[in-house]
Amino acid sequence: MADFNTIAQQFVEFYYNTFDTSRQNLSALYREHSMLTFENAPVQGTVAISDKLLNLPFAQVKHKVDTLDAQPSSEDGGILVLVTGALLVEGSDRPMSYTQAFQLRPEAGSYYVFNDVFRLVYPAA
Amino acid sequence: MADFNTIAQQFVEFYYNTFDTSRQNLSALYREHSMLTFENAPVQGTVAISDKLLNLPFAQVKHKVDTLDAQPSSEDGGILVLVTGALLVEGSDRPMSYTQAFQLRPEAGSYYVFNDVFRLVYPAA
Repeated sequence: MADFNTIAQQFVEFYYNTFDTSRQNLSALYREHSMLTFENAPVQGTVAISDKLLNLPFAQVKHKVDTLDAQPSSEDGGILVLVTGALLVEGSDRPMSYTQAFQLRPEAGSYYVFNDVFRLVYPAA
Repeated sequence: MADFNTIAQQFVEFYYNTFDTSRQNLSALYREHSMLTFENAPVQGTVAISDKLLNLPFAQVKHKVDTLDAQPSSEDGGILVLVTGALLVEGSDRPMSYTQAFQLRPEAGSYYVFNDVFRLVYPAA
């Protein structure tokens, strides 16, 4: 089994590639007890999370990951992942900084997203 | 028992107030299996974490929290906290954006920090 850093890197690459090319497929990463807090709006469950992600006010977006840190989050194989990066929304030439925290949980040889918290980060001062 | 949002808010207020006024007291928040990844440098355990925090290259710092999001992170009362904010290091007049993710775990009616990941966030583009 791969170590938690490798799993986190593979997950993050898959997640943002899917987000930027076929966002509707992200729902497979969540379960009924999964949570997403997107810019302070909390939703729970596969359908609500999928609805939230599909109805964001942009059709196309491109993420660029700058940093990725991972730590074991539980004794049974959970992984905490913290990402910082930039995203560029269609029709804009101004990338925005963001941060996103995930907790991944193991399931049947793979992982799903239990916690997901997203925030834009505005320049200080 | 307070809800997870209230606990997260109280923790974050206490954490940064302690960080900014009496950093040596932060060690009480960690345990031997706690992890800190500070700008990509991972350490584990109360002593190593305390050493890391006390030996950061600034004596005084002031944190300002901009956003705080919390979610339950486990069935036994864990809490995931994602903070974004700005910090101002002594001798500088340029605040820097940061993000920090914590996982809090319950213990004897209180909480300790199991996961702690800190990153500065630089302006996109």
